[in-house]
Amino acid sequence: MQDDPRFTISRDTRLCMSLAGRPGNAGTRLHNHLYRQLGLDCVYKAFTTTDLPAAIGGMRALGIRGCGVSMPFKEACIPLLDELTPSAARLQSVNTIVNDDGRLVAYNTDYIAVAALLKAHGVAPGTPFVLRGSGGMARAVLAALVDHGLHQGLVVARNPQAGAALAAQHGLGWQPDVPAAAPGALLVNVTPLGMAGAPEAATQAFPDALVGAASCVFDVVALPPDTPLVQAARRLGRPVISGDEVIVLQAVEQFALYTGVRPTLAQVAAAAAHARAA
Amino acid sequence: MQDDPRFTISRDTRLCMSLAGRPGNAGTRLHNHLYRQLGLDCVYKAFTTTDLPAAIGGMRALGIRGCGVSMPFKEACIPLLDELTPSAARLQSVNTIVNDDGRLVAYNTDYIAVAALLKAHGVAPGTPFVLRGSGGMARAVLAALVDHGLHQGLVVARNPQAGAALAAQHGLGWQPDVPAAAPGALLVNVTPLGMAGAPEAATQAFPDALVGAASCVFDVVALPPDTPLVQAARRLGRPVISGDEVIVLQAVEQFALYTGVRPTLAQVAAAAAHARAA
Repeated sequence: MQDDPRFTISRDTRLCMSLAGRPGNAGTRLHNHLYRQLGLDCVYKAFTTTDLPAAIGGMRALGIRGCGVSMPFKEACIPLLDELTPSAARLQSVNTIVNDDGRLVAYNTDYIAVAALLKAHGVAPGTPFVLRGSGGMARAVLAALVDHGLHQGLVVARNPQAGAALAAQHGLGWQPDVPAAAPGALLVNVTPLGMAGAPEAATQAFPDALVGAASCVFDVVALPPDTPLVQAARRLGRPVISGDEVIVLQAVEQFALYTGVRPTLAQVAAAAAHARAA
Repeated sequence: MQDDPRFTISRDTRLCMSLAGRPGNAGTRLHNHLYRQLGLDCVYKAFTTTDLPAAIGGMRALGIRGCGVSMPFKEACIPLLDELTPSAARLQSVNTIVNDDGRLVAYNTDYIAVAALLKAHGVAPGTPFVLRGSGGMARAVLAALVDHGLHQGLVVARNPQAGAALAAQHGLGWQPDVPAAAPGALLVNVTPLGMAGAPEAATQAFPDALVGAASCVFDVVALPPDTPLVQAARRLGRPVISGDEVIVLQAVEQFALYTGVRPTLAQVAAAAAHARAA
């Protein structure tokens, strides 16, 4: 056990971390599991802080290699960093920081993952869409949709300020409720509707009438993987992009940025299952 | 392996660290070995930095529980901390920082360990002594000697500035070479004389004539445990305090300050042997 080099932390072991207001355990377990599987001399640990500038300064000064950034730090960290790559600059929101010898470089791997999934699933530029949600992840998804060439869309959000502002940013319409019809549209859910543990866990984000006429259904909710919306899409024979895929691909991107090693989707899926089992 | 909770790093795992200009591996291996042996949910990692204020600020902001401090940071860190306990205040030199909920408290466990060893070995207050050396560790040992009630002593050091200054600080004499005779004295070596790897590895810090007439011999060199000086003392039947004991006791103190758990000397000795085997 102690002779297994993967378990022997030394002065040369690289630390990666995350910063969140309320840290979860999934990232710590997922990354450490992959380090072990791939034999990388790295260790990962989630942190929180009440002093973001000092935490980021400490990351730079201690040579901590990477940092996953969650709420409420995704925008607040920007002035503390040295470079925004296009994904982070596009959103003005950071979820990944890489420390290149003291130079802190920012990415948004949510955007990167969604952009890659739209491509991989062959979503055609010009496809009309309806996006439900107006939070930080909705911003990332919407930017990726627009940059993929989807300019004809509607934002549906209960919050009129956030919904209208997000729609206006991309020259789109906003309304508080789902439309009556949207034939051929890509339907995108970026709300907690259908999410395990949420009050609306049993709610289907788009009704069957819309799902049946959709060209594709994209549910960003990952837990459970088969939300009511995903179940409806499968039942009605519509193509699905699932939240699971976003999480896995996002983690692949983050992991590759930190370590230079790109795990396979199967390796990340296994590590994600391990992380969920905690 | 993955089911062993000691190997499952989570968001709740506490990080301890060290800061050194040139980090070694011994501390990282020793502390992690003890965490495993004792089932503590902690992880230890050595760092270096070119920005000490940011590194210490990061320790505070990230809630890193403890930090071992080595050259060249032992004095430079003082203005960055919140409280000096007596051992650190006495020496104006810090080798251990404990983070109590954002309050950084400084200790010098070298001083604490030497003071405890003088007591444990029954060195009588008033014993005359000869101390060789004038570096940071010599300062810690000399302060512990004086505080133990040893006021009649001589500092031997090649460097006239450092030697004379250290001696004057305690109202003691200084000379560049060992005296011809020092009957009944405690002989203390705090130089690299006899240290494995040093140019003077084969040099005996005090000659047989002095050793044979000494009341006790204290060699702070820990590697090898049987320096030429220690070998001479054993051959001449004089009591010995060894550098091994200083290292083990210093580590016990540091470990107890970080974790609240006091390992046995045997546990620390086993962990130190593991650390050396790297």
